[in-house]
Amino acid sequence: MKHLWDELTNYIKSDYYPFHMPGHKRFPKENISSCGKPALTVEDICRYDITEIEGFDNLHDAKDLLLELQRKAARVYGAEQSFYLVNGSTGGILSAISAVAGEGKKLLAARNCHKSVYNGMLINRLRAVYLLPEMVDNFDIQGEITARQVGERLAENKDICAVVITSPTYDGIISDIRSIADKAHAFGIPLIVDEAHGAHFALSEKAPESAVDCGADIVINSVHKTLPAPTQTALLHVQGKLVDREKLKTYLGIYQSSSPSYLLMAGIDYCMDFVSERGREEYEKLLAVREWIEKETTGLSEIRILSHEGRRDPGKLVISVKGTGMTGQEFYRILLQEYHLQMEMAAPSYVLGILTVMDTGEGAKRLVKALREIDGKISENMPQEGGIMKSGRTDNIYGMIPAASDMGIYEAAQEEREWLLPKKAVGRISGGFLYFYPPGIPVLVPGEVISRELARKIESAGEREEYLTGTSEEGKICVLKASGKKQDAGAAKQV
Amino acid sequence: MKHLWDELTNYIKSDYYPFHMPGHKRFPKENISSCGKPALTVEDICRYDITEIEGFDNLHDAKDLLLELQRKAARVYGAEQSFYLVNGSTGGILSAISAVAGEGKKLLAARNCHKSVYNGMLINRLRAVYLLPEMVDNFDIQGEITARQVGERLAENKDICAVVITSPTYDGIISDIRSIADKAHAFGIPLIVDEAHGAHFALSEKAPESAVDCGADIVINSVHKTLPAPTQTALLHVQGKLVDREKLKTYLGIYQSSSPSYLLMAGIDYCMDFVSERGREEYEKLLAVREWIEKETTGLSEIRILSHEGRRDPGKLVISVKGTGMTGQEFYRILLQEYHLQMEMAAPSYVLGILTVMDTGEGAKRLVKALREIDGKISENMPQEGGIMKSGRTDNIYGMIPAASDMGIYEAAQEEREWLLPKKAVGRISGGFLYFYPPGIPVLVPGEVISRELARKIESAGEREEYLTGTSEEGKICVLKASGKKQDAGAAKQV
Repeated sequence: MKHLWDELTNYIKSDYYPFHMPGHKRFPKENISSCGKPALTVEDICRYDITEIEGFDNLHDAKDLLLELQRKAARVYGAEQSFYLVNGSTGGILSAISAVAGEGKKLLAARNCHKSVYNGMLINRLRAVYLLPEMVDNFDIQGEITARQVGERLAENKDICAVVITSPTYDGIISDIRSIADKAHAFGIPLIVDEAHGAHFALSEKAPESAVDCGADIVINSVHKTLPAPTQTALLHVQGKLVDREKLKTYLGIYQSSSPSYLLMAGIDYCMDFVSERGREEYEKLLAVREWIEKETTGLSEIRILSHEGRRDPGKLVISVKGTGMTGQEFYRILLQEYHLQMEMAAPSYVLGILTVMDTGEGAKRLVKALREIDGKISENMPQEGGIMKSGRTDNIYGMIPAASDMGIYEAAQEEREWLLPKKAVGRISGGFLYFYPPGIPVLVPGEVISRELARKIESAGEREEYLTGTSEEGKICVLKASGKKQDAGAAKQV
Repeated sequence: MKHLWDELTNYIKSDYYPFHMPGHKRFPKENISSCGKPALTVEDICRYDITEIEGFDNLHDAKDLLLELQRKAARVYGAEQSFYLVNGSTGGILSAISAVAGEGKKLLAARNCHKSVYNGMLINRLRAVYLLPEMVDNFDIQGEITARQVGERLAENKDICAVVITSPTYDGIISDIRSIADKAHAFGIPLIVDEAHGAHFALSEKAPESAVDCGADIVINSVHKTLPAPTQTALLHVQGKLVDREKLKTYLGIYQSSSPSYLLMAGIDYCMDFVSERGREEYEKLLAVREWIEKETTGLSEIRILSHEGRRDPGKLVISVKGTGMTGQEFYRILLQEYHLQMEMAAPSYVLGILTVMDTGEGAKRLVKALREIDGKISENMPQEGGIMKSGRTDNIYGMIPAASDMGIYEAAQEEREWLLPKKAVGRISGGFLYFYPPGIPVLVPGEVISRELARKIESAGEREEYLTGTSEEGKICVLKASGKKQDAGAAKQV
């Protein structure tokens, strides 16, 4: 029988290098490779674990210590008001959407939002209007949301209660939040920015501008993702007059444990001190590592790293093998198994790595060495025989929005369901969510119609052994029970 | 500027003894009084903190390690299926209620449920039918819910989707779950038991029977409350055919962070091993400490400890000063300030302490000594001059259910609100929750009518400096804006 603590102990003694969250990268100096140090036990951790006793305030009704610490967080981010989150950005997003939701309203949401946004719509019975980002040239990743798109959708739909977008995206794409906020505010509508992946923007004025500075009404930051803080910790910032703060606070109290962990909260506090005391210099270090990696890999002939110039997050390494005959999954496996480099995610044509202020020069050197060697092998073998992607096909499942039925996410989730193979499900209405995790962005949501093209893409993802969460073990997907609700299979909106 | 980690470090170096959760009691041997040991840092904790990397599975789609560990938890509790919870019992309760909720349905809920049950009704727009427990003789605490009550309400209401009760209660009162489950099942209705305070029932067959063994359909256990596990960790068990498990799993994925903490999960795993390997002997130890305390305090003339005989949890110490001229708050302060004994809660006429398997004989001795000395002082001074409760009045605010308006919790929460002093609010409909924390049981919920008696009780709680969460700094309460919705102030159901 396995024990999770033993598994963790063994893992941290290995020489696997983390190009993934959490942003603390397990505090490398004493940790990587050598690793005599960590001899921690669950008992040790519990010694620091208390509850709402005298002098330690109550997160859900903060009046003293925790109020003071949350004010410190607000100062670090330049926000009017900030809240500690101990149920991840998830709890913040659900609270934000619940606070702005209204009976019979719609949410204007970027289609590449995290599933928690969709869950917010489900719980609050909101219908969705989507914003589809365009693709970034030569990389199979989704780009910015524009203020123009937002303005058009707001003009067309009079019953939108809020705009929600993700910036930076998982892949590091930042939208022009200032213009989008201005546009939303011109309609009197609040803007919620899921900035879960941009908590480190607060490190330095040289970092990309944070959504708080750009005037978003609610901003959610996962401090654990890109800053040194434990997993599950995050912050929610609120400003302006468009959000009912009393309602927001009520929902923060609903979606988060009534026994919040003081260990997690101490982790957030530690992180805020880190940002305010060492932010600028640490950001310089991160930028230097990033630029060094880009410089050292410009000569590669097959593998390409997406530049961080423009509105891009320097903390994200999109390393593409598109058109090389190698899949992102194969690339990911080689990095993991041959080089012990643990990336954050494998996509069909690239891998994603996270760089934070806790990265070491050693990690960067190992990565560059690996990329050079793999690049050399790809060049030698091109065109590769038997490579799954030798046809150059990159089946981008995210570049489309399935057609809507007359049912919203909530309504569809209430219906009776059955499980079918994708090809048998063409024309049927989805009864569940399908998403890759990571990134946790839904491909299909309840109430949407399964087109022939989507069914084919789901099946070929299965054939490539890309695991879609929401499918059954036999690769079936969840649809509403037939009731004459078959819809036009060709009706999917395509981009 | 305070730092939470420093505050925790200072606190654990003190000699305050914890008669409160978390159940690990900070692993006493190395911790209490002497305390050279704990020199932990946030960095140390983060070294063990990872994310969903290779080999560590994904809690929200567990197929490997985490599936195996959750099966181990199910075996420990004898449940068909168990889920790890990292957002406390809160996340489990919201998921359970969402999984059984249906359009236009009602929830049959014990009125002394935790606020998360009410939040579950709010989110799912369920109307409430309440079960009011009777009071325990001579102690101002609420007693059991009976199968008879449950049967009567189910017979009267045809649109109930589930029964939810809390057992054991915060005060340690256990209901006859087997009879209640039988009754609910006779109507084809699932029973959800909030057994947050009864995770330790799994330790030994000598412990009270767990709700899982008694046939409840969903049972939620806070492992952090009464077992050695970190704060915010819990378990949800499900069995039988009345609950849609697919829907339950969906909601567990909605209300919990998509980045669950491996530290918290390792804490749950540690705790399961503790229970299965050492449960029986540790429970004997707990029982011995409990019995020793009861025996050593039987001779007290004023202070009374509620016996653990009958359906009572030996882990809860209800220590009453009812009728002594001392309030629970005063009693609590003396124990804290003069004896450095940190209790779990102060109620108007008693204090509540939690005893777990991690308690030491030293803690019990210090408590008995303190109780003897305080008892002696009370006896000398009776009838005490200036004691707030010298009149013997114990204003039990929990012994009544305010009258319902025509609005449910959700409907009322959507209306415009204003803040009024309680006496100005008589006859008005509540727009918010009012509760004491701990225990987190609502006194008033949105949609209920404020009676003259309740207004008086709220005001006198304020005068006694008992802090009611949900009141404003000026002691005002939240009501719906007047719209001719004034209702009969005398209509409150009383018990």
